[in-house]
Amino acid sequence: MHEWTYEALMQELTKPADTKTLLIVLDGLGGLPVPELNGKTELEAAQKPNLDELAKRSMLGLSEPVFPGIAPGSSAGHFALFGYDPLRYYVGRGVLEALGIGFPLQEGDVAIRANFATIRYEGDQPIVVDRRAGRPPTEETKRLCAKLRDAISEVDGVRVLIEPVKEHRFVVVLRGEGLGDGVRDTDPQGTEQPPLSPVPDPDTPENRRTAEVAAKLVGRIAEVLRDEPKANFALLRGFAKRPNWVSFRDLYKLNPCCIAVYPMYRGLAQLVGMTVLNFEGDTIADEIAALRRAWNDYDFFFVHIKATDSRGEDGDFQGKIAVIEEFDRHLPDILALQPDVLAITGDHSTPARYRAHSWHPVPLLVHSRWVIPDPTVDGFGERACAKGTLGKIPAKFLMSLLLAHAGRLERYQA
Amino acid sequence: MHEWTYEALMQELTKPADTKTLLIVLDGLGGLPVPELNGKTELEAAQKPNLDELAKRSMLGLSEPVFPGIAPGSSAGHFALFGYDPLRYYVGRGVLEALGIGFPLQEGDVAIRANFATIRYEGDQPIVVDRRAGRPPTEETKRLCAKLRDAISEVDGVRVLIEPVKEHRFVVVLRGEGLGDGVRDTDPQGTEQPPLSPVPDPDTPENRRTAEVAAKLVGRIAEVLRDEPKANFALLRGFAKRPNWVSFRDLYKLNPCCIAVYPMYRGLAQLVGMTVLNFEGDTIADEIAALRRAWNDYDFFFVHIKATDSRGEDGDFQGKIAVIEEFDRHLPDILALQPDVLAITGDHSTPARYRAHSWHPVPLLVHSRWVIPDPTVDGFGERACAKGTLGKIPAKFLMSLLLAHAGRLERYQA
Repeated sequence: MHEWTYEALMQELTKPADTKTLLIVLDGLGGLPVPELNGKTELEAAQKPNLDELAKRSMLGLSEPVFPGIAPGSSAGHFALFGYDPLRYYVGRGVLEALGIGFPLQEGDVAIRANFATIRYEGDQPIVVDRRAGRPPTEETKRLCAKLRDAISEVDGVRVLIEPVKEHRFVVVLRGEGLGDGVRDTDPQGTEQPPLSPVPDPDTPENRRTAEVAAKLVGRIAEVLRDEPKANFALLRGFAKRPNWVSFRDLYKLNPCCIAVYPMYRGLAQLVGMTVLNFEGDTIADEIAALRRAWNDYDFFFVHIKATDSRGEDGDFQGKIAVIEEFDRHLPDILALQPDVLAITGDHSTPARYRAHSWHPVPLLVHSRWVIPDPTVDGFGERACAKGTLGKIPAKFLMSLLLAHAGRLERYQA
Repeated sequence: MHEWTYEALMQELTKPADTKTLLIVLDGLGGLPVPELNGKTELEAAQKPNLDELAKRSMLGLSEPVFPGIAPGSSAGHFALFGYDPLRYYVGRGVLEALGIGFPLQEGDVAIRANFATIRYEGDQPIVVDRRAGRPPTEETKRLCAKLRDAISEVDGVRVLIEPVKEHRFVVVLRGEGLGDGVRDTDPQGTEQPPLSPVPDPDTPENRRTAEVAAKLVGRIAEVLRDEPKANFALLRGFAKRPNWVSFRDLYKLNPCCIAVYPMYRGLAQLVGMTVLNFEGDTIADEIAALRRAWNDYDFFFVHIKATDSRGEDGDFQGKIAVIEEFDRHLPDILALQPDVLAITGDHSTPARYRAHSWHPVPLLVHSRWVIPDPTVDGFGERACAKGTLGKIPAKFLMSLLLAHAGRLERYQA
């Protein structure tokens, strides 16, 4: 007996339609009750008349990113919202780090997350003294990366691309033929021990080739940095290639675009084949303006708003409220575009009181002609969503739900 | 593409923390509306001020043991609560029967559920007349087992251990090298037909060995019981070995203990590697006292309270209410221990009006620092839980949820 997968079913059932679907992700939207807010959450406490009014004529529910208890990272949270089961679709740390700085990864590239580190030598044997080289300021890391770039552009015919990230972190991309990404980390995860050698795992010719190049690269880096007082070595982690997944376009028969400011989210959208729009500015207003300009050219729009998550991670519940209220003021402009389907949710919760991504399911609002609103709802909030007419749905099924509302799904079986 | 299993993900993401988690299982907790209680359920009708007060500052939801419509047995219900998917983790009847009487099964033992039966002979051919030997009283079964034990201690070098259970039921454990548990039942499931031979299935050397020993054992039993007026034969069912599953400790990085009175639940906890505590007495007060004494020595506590289920099976809704009220009086002592995470639920529903395990999802209360209470809740009950902010979750994800609340789960992916 053959079992339909989500992917096969989507490719079978989706059909084009003259409808526009808008998915707005307020990153880290969900919150927890805050004593200073009389036990309301950030979302519940925000003055957001437009969202509250919309909630009354929409379906509310909760989106579960992975399964109960699992707090997803940004990639897992977004893959789920895009319908890519995060337990099956995930990318290595090297790729995420490269996406995070907007590095244009090409097919076949091996991306590596690198740390500047401090070592001392016992004879010829390097011993790790500080795995983060005293956390140099980012400016210092930029200088170190420039120095490495000047000295090293290739190893054994493989191009070496080096980009600073933040503090001690930088990205190395190996570009060449026949490179595998199955190579173990060289970070020994502790000090007073030698760095590890890059070991191919599993032992294939491609992985062996990458491991050999990486070993030589580490030696070259150590030579170039020999006289640096602190950052005199590099540890390599998360060897990874950009995956080659079925695209949004092929999966859903959509022409999708992404409006996001942060490189990470632009990169995640690109991974699933969205067109990533370039625009001036980095405010919500700038994003909405870009949305308006693009409105006629696409039929699916992913708009990512970062600051809800940032304020949540800072523990700044007033700041998070302010972002929600800022978004609310733009909602009429969004509604004026008359999307056929509008979903507003988050990729995960980032309660200001928790100061981190949490596992709590995320408030979800779906609006279209085909909703069953709840007349007792008085606004958009965690508790209204927990009792919402949409119920709790796995985030990985949000796209199929939105496609249905958009008139883009055939019936399953006669 | 590699898919993360629950087990692999838990082993990857769990981390130690200085927190204590308490899972209290009121066996068969869920109920149905009872006309004599003005349509309230047992749980709703109980006078339980402490539970009701706790419910107001907790998250309520429903725990689905298997999937809609499936009424689980005690083992399936508990395996689910422990995070062992009951559709993948289950043990044979022989093992459950042995656990139920507290038999200390060793690795490699084959446990068999046996019935005393009545046969007559047609020539040398036995014919089953009564599959339960007229349901002898348990005292009689004890005498019969003692008689068998005196006469039979081994067969072909395999040790034979015989223990009475209840009425016509007893347990046979075969202990020896190279025994398989793939052997078909000898119970023909009807009368006026010969008992079946123990057939190895599949036909492996290990299963063949067990089948041969079992066939000889049945002959020896028939000899020993030849002159008994009713119980002159034994039918064997549910050949099973104790499984060797990943332990709670390895899965969750917890140091767990079990506080339970009944052997079955102690055995189930032991199967997943919990330390099973011994203590005096069998009341809820005795269990709470044991909990208090153990509080400093473990970080996960499974407390099992049986009587809710027993009264439910009896159809005694007032009795079930009395048990819930008794538990409620002890709740302040439990809360005084200040568990970081407290879950109160059942392994399944046993509505007094249904007089059996039912398929209804089970009321679930989760308390920690990180909850979203519902201000409209006025108590702990089936209908409050059905509308609760936690929603309905598969029981097999309760542990991951509790670990998150306990600060014991890393984020999934960056």
